[in-house]
Amino acid sequence: MSKGLPKRSENYSEWYNELVKKADLAENSAVRGCMVIKPYGFSIWEKMQRALDDMFKETGHSNAYFPLFIPKSFLSKEASHVEGFAKECAVVTHYRLINDPNGNGVIVDPDAKLEEELIVRPTSETVIWNTYKSWIQSYRDLPLLINQWANVVRWEMRTRIFLRTAEFLWQEGHTAHATKVEAEEETARMLDVYATFAEEWMALPVVKGQKTANERFAGAEDTLCIEAMMQDGKALQAGTSHFLGQNFAKAFDVKFQDKSGALEYVWGTSWGVSTRLMGALIMAHSDDLGLVLPPKLAPIQVVIVPIFKGDEQLEQISEKINPILKELKSKGISVKFDKDDQARPGWKFAEYELKGVPVRVAVGMRDLESGTVEVARRDNLSKEIVSIEGIAQYLENLLNDIQENIYKKALDFRTENTFEVNTWDEFTAKIEEGGFLMAHWDGTSETEEKIKELTKATIRCIPLNSKSEAGVCVLTGKPSEGRVIFARAY
Amino acid sequence: MSKGLPKRSENYSEWYNELVKKADLAENSAVRGCMVIKPYGFSIWEKMQRALDDMFKETGHSNAYFPLFIPKSFLSKEASHVEGFAKECAVVTHYRLINDPNGNGVIVDPDAKLEEELIVRPTSETVIWNTYKSWIQSYRDLPLLINQWANVVRWEMRTRIFLRTAEFLWQEGHTAHATKVEAEEETARMLDVYATFAEEWMALPVVKGQKTANERFAGAEDTLCIEAMMQDGKALQAGTSHFLGQNFAKAFDVKFQDKSGALEYVWGTSWGVSTRLMGALIMAHSDDLGLVLPPKLAPIQVVIVPIFKGDEQLEQISEKINPILKELKSKGISVKFDKDDQARPGWKFAEYELKGVPVRVAVGMRDLESGTVEVARRDNLSKEIVSIEGIAQYLENLLNDIQENIYKKALDFRTENTFEVNTWDEFTAKIEEGGFLMAHWDGTSETEEKIKELTKATIRCIPLNSKSEAGVCVLTGKPSEGRVIFARAY
Repeated sequence: MSKGLPKRSENYSEWYNELVKKADLAENSAVRGCMVIKPYGFSIWEKMQRALDDMFKETGHSNAYFPLFIPKSFLSKEASHVEGFAKECAVVTHYRLINDPNGNGVIVDPDAKLEEELIVRPTSETVIWNTYKSWIQSYRDLPLLINQWANVVRWEMRTRIFLRTAEFLWQEGHTAHATKVEAEEETARMLDVYATFAEEWMALPVVKGQKTANERFAGAEDTLCIEAMMQDGKALQAGTSHFLGQNFAKAFDVKFQDKSGALEYVWGTSWGVSTRLMGALIMAHSDDLGLVLPPKLAPIQVVIVPIFKGDEQLEQISEKINPILKELKSKGISVKFDKDDQARPGWKFAEYELKGVPVRVAVGMRDLESGTVEVARRDNLSKEIVSIEGIAQYLENLLNDIQENIYKKALDFRTENTFEVNTWDEFTAKIEEGGFLMAHWDGTSETEEKIKELTKATIRCIPLNSKSEAGVCVLTGKPSEGRVIFARAY
Repeated sequence: MSKGLPKRSENYSEWYNELVKKADLAENSAVRGCMVIKPYGFSIWEKMQRALDDMFKETGHSNAYFPLFIPKSFLSKEASHVEGFAKECAVVTHYRLINDPNGNGVIVDPDAKLEEELIVRPTSETVIWNTYKSWIQSYRDLPLLINQWANVVRWEMRTRIFLRTAEFLWQEGHTAHATKVEAEEETARMLDVYATFAEEWMALPVVKGQKTANERFAGAEDTLCIEAMMQDGKALQAGTSHFLGQNFAKAFDVKFQDKSGALEYVWGTSWGVSTRLMGALIMAHSDDLGLVLPPKLAPIQVVIVPIFKGDEQLEQISEKINPILKELKSKGISVKFDKDDQARPGWKFAEYELKGVPVRVAVGMRDLESGTVEVARRDNLSKEIVSIEGIAQYLENLLNDIQENIYKKALDFRTENTFEVNTWDEFTAKIEEGGFLMAHWDGTSETEEKIKELTKATIRCIPLNSKSEAGVCVLTGKPSEGRVIFARAY
């Protein structure tokens, strides 16, 4: 019994939109491009936040909070940065509303104009480096390892829930270092943190790579990224880690005295992941029945549905189930016992499938007699009759299996949809089927742009683990030293 | 050895400002009225958040996220609401910057004007109730119990770090109910949660009370509050819980079908606490040496300072201390072993006093011989020689004692500075000394305003537990049925 989702094979885009809505994850708000994250969706985001935050702290970072607003002049201090963000920023120009003396209701008070316009942060490098100027004097103040959880705004024209919204939630790490090498190491370390999070928590295999100059963050000297494959074969950039060189230190005059007493500019990094990860999670694993959540991020990991008529039967089932609930909870497993007598079991089954609950346990009167329950997996939809004896341990193991299986399925899918292509004909044919194309490229922005124009495919990254291999560019025939990943992308 | 703070008795206001700065809690940013919350300050706020969030979830609430921006027309839908917030709101009017063709650098693009201005949320009732309209159809959708952690902006003219800032962090609960009684119960329940949090976590005694009509939230029918006393005798409103009646349901047309099938307007509440609590925490407990933190909110609860010369001595001390660190951590106590050999013990002692670490343990070579350590309490500055044997358990008990003692001290202070006054002469004399004045009031806004004008004292609240007592208004001599609390306030 499906909840009336479109099929992925028929309309992937509509399937995604409907799933986000029907599974109560999020919805569009009355404000153009801004979303409302609903409680169920937010509880998944909270699990992501908690896991990432723990990883940031384990790697020595502290959280802090910087202002929402950025003076216009700050944004302009780093040339490529303002170029990148000016096109799409929300600008605060006034600070008061009044009742229109001409009777047009509430209007902006023309007398309450700000001296300098404020930009709602699209990212916080500028306001943070302006602060670091007073925090950093000596090598003893370094490294400075700070993260912020915040909302940011980029006035995107075409928006899509979770994937591209005018306002989104994210974390942004901003670190400062005494040497280039340390900053480069930090850039790589945080990319590793993101990759580990994606693979171990989201069950999402990712390619770690470097962005081309074209796709680099506005203000960075080098941008590393993790790229994931969605079920329609398109790529999704799931996180980025930037080596900023001394760009922001120079723009905001942040120098430190090194051990020899000399004044040097500080080296910087920044790195972020956002609610976009919610989109990746949904699109990577879910199916035509609804969400498929990896157990580590599922708000409810196990749901127990009693099959009963009347209070007495429910009572008997509860007696058997209550100690199991207790045992599961003591194992840190989040479990729901759905005793609601207003909904039929079949309706509940479909509902929990839609919501992506990894394991469903059904138990009726016959089960009590036979000392068994029915256990259904969400990931592969298989069912099994399992003895009640030792069920908690069984379920704990099963959740681990499911976590691994979801990862493996996504990895197999990516492997099956990654192709080496060597000619332009191959390239143009394969790109229509979707997937990652491993192809040679001559290293120029011109060729990269030409290929994008002709095929809508972009270079997702130069994989960090790519082996050097002599070849010729798939478009121009010029020499190349290794393959890069092309794909159409979200 | 003090870190050069002004004395509370000489300049309380400067003492507060300097303490916030020197203890690395927060600082003013380059953006008028907006603060930077520094890592140490933020780690205290994170502890507050975690404790409150757990309490909200225990009482059945879920987190969600709503847009930062509010269309101007939404704000106007509830008459007293717009009246309350229009005076001080940040208004977004444009969505793009461009390079000025006349060479004046980066300017706001006049062609990128929004059709309707957006307000940066000062509070989210309007955008949330507009959303609830589509979430609520039937009594089955109620109660709807939602909380949001967010940043909000109120363009205050006179700002003060943590206490009154243009941008601040807070949580805002927004609930919807089928009946007036349920909404009133929720309003009271969340006030109780705040009072429990203030008393048990912040060690801050509070008076639960009701605001007068004058001080009510813009759009509420009733505002409950918790009021605390700072060390200068001034009051600080630490949290509010509003009964909204059907005001926002009517403004946004939110109706539900009740069990009989009739359509009714929904009843609402909202409630919030903010980073203002950081200000309350600092001002209630700290002293001329620095912060005094209740152990439950201290990022570092115990610091161990070794007194040593050379690596060998440090080695010997570490050998003794390492198992203690392990035992303390296993008890969930956050402990720091400060082995830094660049700073002298005396400097460290002063630094941890400044930062408010509840317990300092000093251990040197002689202590190793005698099997003891020196334990210093931050709250009352007492020191004791304690056997190393069983030290972890001793410290755990001590932290509990300190938590209680800080509360008790604040409670005693409040008791000593709460006065019943019965005549206008008494009132005007006592108000200059600070503290809470329990006085009769004739119940009119006119008298309330007159008293404020004459003395700068406001009615903090009508205490919920106040006993009815016939008397006459301290200003007008008109009859009164009970005392209210007057005080000067932050």
